[in-house]
Amino acid sequence: MSTVYAVIIAGGRGERFWPLSTDRVPKPFIPLLERRTLIQQTVDRLLPLLPPERMLISIGEAHREIAAAQLPQIPPENFIVEPVGRDTAPCLGYCALHIEQRDPDAVLFALPADHYIADSAAYRRTIEKGISALPGASGVVFGIRPVRPETGYGYVQAQESEPAAEFLSVLRFVEKPDLDRARAYQAAGDYFWNSGMFVWRNRTLLQLIEKHMQELHRGLAALRPLIGRQESRAELHRIFATLPRISIDFGIMEKTLGLRLVPAEFVWDDIGNWGALARALPHDADSNVSLGAHLALESSRCITYSDAGVVATFGVSDLIVIHAQGKVLVCSKDRAGELKRVLAALGPEA
Amino acid sequence: MSTVYAVIIAGGRGERFWPLSTDRVPKPFIPLLERRTLIQQTVDRLLPLLPPERMLISIGEAHREIAAAQLPQIPPENFIVEPVGRDTAPCLGYCALHIEQRDPDAVLFALPADHYIADSAAYRRTIEKGISALPGASGVVFGIRPVRPETGYGYVQAQESEPAAEFLSVLRFVEKPDLDRARAYQAAGDYFWNSGMFVWRNRTLLQLIEKHMQELHRGLAALRPLIGRQESRAELHRIFATLPRISIDFGIMEKTLGLRLVPAEFVWDDIGNWGALARALPHDADSNVSLGAHLALESSRCITYSDAGVVATFGVSDLIVIHAQGKVLVCSKDRAGELKRVLAALGPEA
Repeated sequence: MSTVYAVIIAGGRGERFWPLSTDRVPKPFIPLLERRTLIQQTVDRLLPLLPPERMLISIGEAHREIAAAQLPQIPPENFIVEPVGRDTAPCLGYCALHIEQRDPDAVLFALPADHYIADSAAYRRTIEKGISALPGASGVVFGIRPVRPETGYGYVQAQESEPAAEFLSVLRFVEKPDLDRARAYQAAGDYFWNSGMFVWRNRTLLQLIEKHMQELHRGLAALRPLIGRQESRAELHRIFATLPRISIDFGIMEKTLGLRLVPAEFVWDDIGNWGALARALPHDADSNVSLGAHLALESSRCITYSDAGVVATFGVSDLIVIHAQGKVLVCSKDRAGELKRVLAALGPEA
Repeated sequence: MSTVYAVIIAGGRGERFWPLSTDRVPKPFIPLLERRTLIQQTVDRLLPLLPPERMLISIGEAHREIAAAQLPQIPPENFIVEPVGRDTAPCLGYCALHIEQRDPDAVLFALPADHYIADSAAYRRTIEKGISALPGASGVVFGIRPVRPETGYGYVQAQESEPAAEFLSVLRFVEKPDLDRARAYQAAGDYFWNSGMFVWRNRTLLQLIEKHMQELHRGLAALRPLIGRQESRAELHRIFATLPRISIDFGIMEKTLGLRLVPAEFVWDDIGNWGALARALPHDADSNVSLGAHLALESSRCITYSDAGVVATFGVSDLIVIHAQGKVLVCSKDRAGELKRVLAALGPEA
């Protein structure tokens, strides 16, 4: 079997978990669900499958230090620093150049750094199935069976084609639906949430980019001779800035035939904002969910977080109360997805 | 005119302004409405009337240090430390013993350390009228004209008896009324809120105690020879613990004839809990009131306080949000008066 490299994409922004996360310390680097940060949890989860030498961390220039500090077991050359952020297609193409130099026959497993996964053992079983499903496919996507009519995710339609196989054949990638469609997808049974986790042969990924994204392909060709050369940072920055801002889903996956889908056997959530904590954490008798010290008195359906002293709620309901980084957010639960408006109003103070 | 001593009673508890105030740092010692603490504001307000040498600060043993630190201009011997808390009648009786030793003919002006007064100059004019009204009276109480049917205060009924006088004659002291009575008192025009501010000849106060509170009188007689003797702290504590827990209103004023009332010319509030800030501070366009950094986004009728980083509220209304001493309180406005339940639930953590 080919050597597998994991590419952990740590590209999340900071605004959805303000004031705990900020542009300086974005979501992958915050201790959201336990004491370890999300990216630390991601690496921990993969360690039984892969040695740290085969984990690449794709990261923005501004977060190189915090990433290195949080992941001391990852070799320094495995932090793949993007000089400018350019969405997932350029990010993965650039990582593929690094892997190509180390092992042209490697397999690339791409995954976001900041997802919630309830059961690590089931997660690793699913990943192993995905890698096993690669021979004979152009690529593999991991799909999550919808548990609600979610309008914030892309979907993948996939059906059985080989009897008794552990994978399905992808029919099509679908962009974020409206609520009616999301309901229909959930009812249909052959639609899955696109988890953002993929497997390709590294070589195939580069070929797919050549076939479907000529501009990116040309950019990568210009980048290839610079890989590993310290003195080329200015040149790297110049070329990177010319790459198209396109996601791997839109740039490649929607156009690629012969993809397979492996359904996840684990509970998954992308924890897109503070409101998602209510799905990922245990509730008290009044449906409050809390991380850190919380006293709930006649309070219900609240989400609280504290990285310092106690948060006391009294006679309130359906609130998000965050006490982090010395700041306080009190937000109606139905506004959790609009936090960027708070940051815009605060300006540099945020 | 007699020499006037002010007795500033700093006996407030800590629970109503948690987490800013605590039993360790009770209400008089918190910077509630401006940078200076309430007791500092009280002393500042009196300074144009009286030198610090004639201000006595009545204080519990536990708060001697914080009081001395906040009021460096007050001579050390003017902090009158109660070995055990015993309500206002023993407190004032004990202070009267100290004043008696310095000047038996002095006038005693008693006032709480933690009230809000909007206009210091008008306040001082009223106090001067009260002192001028003392000759011919057994005592003077300052009354506030009711601006709402408040059920949390005692009332004083008073009517004009001498034409063109600056004072009224007290008919009776009334305990906290129910809402119907409070409405009637407000409508009547001859009822005033009992401000807790009084003037007596020091000698008369001690005589009134002898007449109406024999138990306290006997205790004070035992305390008298100990005043100013450092070595008698154990004895002081022993006697003080035997004094009755009775307020000056209930123990003396309700039973005393010949009292006069001077109506306050200033806006007054006892700021009994966080909810009272809405009366004492300016509002924004959405009726939010805030002390410290606050961002209000689609929020209305909230009261916020921060002694540190920003408090952001988004899509909420009628909340009290306090960020103080490294702790956070989020409380429905209609529960502001029940904060002791939060403290009871928190226990020593509070």
